Amino acid sequence: MPISETWLLPDGVADVLPEQAQVIETLRRNALDFLASRGYQLVYTPFIEYIESLSSLSESNQDLDLATFKVIDQLTGRLLGVRADMTPQVARIDAHVHPVEGVARYCYAGTVLHTKPRGFNTTRAPLQLGAELFGSDSIDADVEMIDVMLSLIENAGLVEGVHLDLGHVGLFRSLVKHAGLTKDIERHLSDLYQRKALPELAEFTQNLKFGADFYALGRYASDIQALKTNLSAEILADEAFKQAFDVLTTTQAEIQARWSNLHIGIDVVELRSYHYHTGLMYAVYAPNRAAPLAQGGRYDGIGEHFGRARPATGFSCDLYALSAGQFKQIEKVVAPKGTNQTLLAAITTARQQGLSVIQLLGNDDLSSVPNATHQMIEVAGEWKIEKI
Amino acid sequence: MPISETWLLPDGVADVLPEQAQVIETLRRNALDFLASRGYQLVYTPFIEYIESLSSLSESNQDLDLATFKVIDQLTGRLLGVRADMTPQVARIDAHVHPVEGVARYCYAGTVLHTKPRGFNTTRAPLQLGAELFGSDSIDADVEMIDVMLSLIENAGLVEGVHLDLGHVGLFRSLVKHAGLTKDIERHLSDLYQRKALPELAEFTQNLKFGADFYALGRYASDIQALKTNLSAEILADEAFKQAFDVLTTTQAEIQARWSNLHIGIDVVELRSYHYHTGLMYAVYAPNRAAPLAQGGRYDGIGEHFGRARPATGFSCDLYALSAGQFKQIEKVVAPKGTNQTLLAAITTARQQGLSVIQLLGNDDLSSVPNATHQMIEVAGEWKIEKI
Repeated sequence: MPISETWLLPDGVADVLPEQAQVIETLRRNALDFLASRGYQLVYTPFIEYIESLSSLSESNQDLDLATFKVIDQLTGRLLGVRADMTPQVARIDAHVHPVEGVARYCYAGTVLHTKPRGFNTTRAPLQLGAELFGSDSIDADVEMIDVMLSLIENAGLVEGVHLDLGHVGLFRSLVKHAGLTKDIERHLSDLYQRKALPELAEFTQNLKFGADFYALGRYASDIQALKTNLSAEILADEAFKQAFDVLTTTQAEIQARWSNLHIGIDVVELRSYHYHTGLMYAVYAPNRAAPLAQGGRYDGIGEHFGRARPATGFSCDLYALSAGQFKQIEKVVAPKGTNQTLLAAITTARQQGLSVIQLLGNDDLSSVPNATHQMIEVAGEWKIEKI
Repeated sequence: MPISETWLLPDGVADVLPEQAQVIETLRRNALDFLASRGYQLVYTPFIEYIESLSSLSESNQDLDLATFKVIDQLTGRLLGVRADMTPQVARIDAHVHPVEGVARYCYAGTVLHTKPRGFNTTRAPLQLGAELFGSDSIDADVEMIDVMLSLIENAGLVEGVHLDLGHVGLFRSLVKHAGLTKDIERHLSDLYQRKALPELAEFTQNLKFGADFYALGRYASDIQALKTNLSAEILADEAFKQAFDVLTTTQAEIQARWSNLHIGIDVVELRSYHYHTGLMYAVYAPNRAAPLAQGGRYDGIGEHFGRARPATGFSCDLYALSAGQFKQIEKVVAPKGTNQTLLAAITTARQQGLSVIQLLGNDDLSSVPNATHQMIEVAGEWKIEKI
C-alpha cells in the first residue's frame, strides 16, 4: 500500500472529527441521563463474545449472523463474534449475569459492527443506543417504551414532523395458524406483504384457505377500521387475533393521548424483523429519511437461549443518524506562556467555567494554535479574555 | 453449546453492570471534560481499518500487530484490523483527515481489543482514554502532557501515593550510535536492561566498546547524579546524549515544581516500547499495582506513515483500571400507575432533579421493581418521595 493510501478508510467507516464528535458526545450523555431518569440502568456489554452467545436472535434471523464479523479466539481456538447488535447481550445479562425478580430496565450505548452496510450510503459501525425492558408483558410496558423512544427523539430536537409506525406480528401469525398454512406459504405471503405487491397478493390468495382474510390484511394494512369491516367473523373471533388487535389499538390510543400532535400510522403487515419480534413493533420516521430514526418491538422469550425466558420489549437507534450531521464550533482561548501566579489562577478559573484554554508552548506565538477564537491578555494587572 | 454455557464470556472480556458502569461513565465524562478544558479536542476513531493504516506503529512494534484481530472486508476482500490502540488512528487524523498548521491537541475514549490479555488477570478489551499533542517538539509539550496525565489521575481520586517514572530512549540510543554497535548487540543490551540483569550486564560490557558507559547506564539508571559521575567525558560531550539528558532533567524539575509532593523516579533504561518511542517516556504507578495507571511518551514522526511526519507526544490509560473496582449504589423511586396530572407533574420534576423514577406497569406492585429505594406517595394532596 503506497503512503498516499494508508490514510484511506474502508467504505461505511468514518472518523468523527471534533466539531461533530462534540455534538454526538452531548447527544449520548443527554440520552443516557434521560434514560436513567426513567429508570433505565446503564450497562456496558463486551465487544466480542462466543458466537453461540451472540446468536440468540440469529438462530431465527440469519441477517444478524451474516452481519457479524467472526474471529478466532487465540486462547481457546473457538469462534468469536464482534457484536452486530447489543440487544442479545442485554438479554443475556438479564437472563444470567444480573438476574433480578420483577421488571428490569437497561440502557446501553456503543459501537456495533456490520460486515456490510445495510443500505445505500449507510455506516457499517453505527453508534447504537437503546433501552430494553424485561419481565413485563403488559401493554403498559410497550407504551412506556414508545413514550421513552419519542421523548429521546424530542430531546434530540428531531420530534417535529416525525411519524410513528405501529405493527403487530400477531395478526399475521394468528391468521397463519388459524388457516394452518405451511412454512413455505407463510414465507411467500410474508414476502408479498413486504413488497406491498397487492395484485400478486390478490392472485395468490384466490385459492387459499382464508384467502380473503389474507388479502384484506394486506389491502387494509394501514386502515384498522376498514380492516375490521373486511375480515371474516371467524378470524375476528380468534383469541390470538383479538388479543393482537387489542394491543395494537390500545397502544395507539395511549400514545396518542400522550403525544396529541403526533402522526401515528398503522401497518399490520410491516414484518421487517418478523422472526425476531413476537408482538407489537414500533418505528419512528423523520420526514425525508428512508431509514427509521429509532425502532423496536416486543421479543418475548429471547432469554430462553440463556435458560431464562422473560417478556421483553425495547428499541434502539443510531446516534450518528440522530445527530443529523450537526456541527458545533469550538471556542479556544489562548493564554501566554509562564507560571506567573495570577496568570495560572486566571487560567484555572476559565477552565472551571467550561472554557477550553491552551497555554503557548516553547517559543510559539498565537499562530501556533489552529482556529483560536479568544486570547487572554493582561489589562491593568488583571487577566481578561478577548475575542481575536 | 448447551444452554448452561451460552452465557459464558471469553477470558479477558466482561460485562459492566449498572453499579460499576455508572462509576466508569462518570469518570469518562469528567476526564473528557477536563481534557476539553485543557484544549484537547474529542475525536471518535473507527473500530476497523485496513490493516496497513493501523500498522504505522506496528512496523517496528510486532506486539501491536500480534495484538490486532484481523477480519476480511467482504466489500473488498482486503484485510481489516480491529483497533488494538487508538494512537496510530489519531496520528492518521492529524496527518491527513484534519491537517492543521501549528499545534493540534486531540483526546479520545473507546474500547480497543487485544487478541490476548497482556498480563495475568488483564482485560482484552480496555476502555482506552488518551490525549495526544502534535506539532511541538518543545520540552513544554512533554511537561504539559505529564501535567495533564497527573491531573486526570488526581481528578479520578487516585493521586495519593502515586509515583511518576521518567525515562528517555535518547540516552541509550545516542550511546549505541556513538559506540557504533550492531543491531544484535543493541537488542541484547536492551534485553539485559529490561531484565535488570546487572551481573550479566557487567560481564557482557567488559569487552564492549564504551562498555563502562553501557554498564553505568544500567547500574545508575535511577540515579542521575551518580550516572553523570560514572560516565566517560566523551559520552557526556555527545550532542544527542546531552540533549536527551537535558530534556530528562528539565522535565523532572518542571514537573516537581508543579507537583511538589509527587515522588518522581528516573529510569534511563526503562525501554518498554523502545521501538515506538523517540524521546521522553513517562508512566504513573499506583501503590500495590504492577501495571501503570497511565503511560505515554514522545513518538515523533509517527505521521510519516501517512505522509506527514510531525513531532508527537501523548499518553493513554485504561478507564477500567482507573475506576479501581468502585461501585455506586443506584437510587430508584417508584411511583404508582396513572395519568393523574399532579402525579405526572411530580414525576417530571423529580426526574428533572436527576432522580430515577419508575412508574408501575399493568397490575404490578412495589415488589416488581428490584432494589427500589424510595417511593412516591400522596400526602394531603401533595406527592412526596419517601425512603422505603
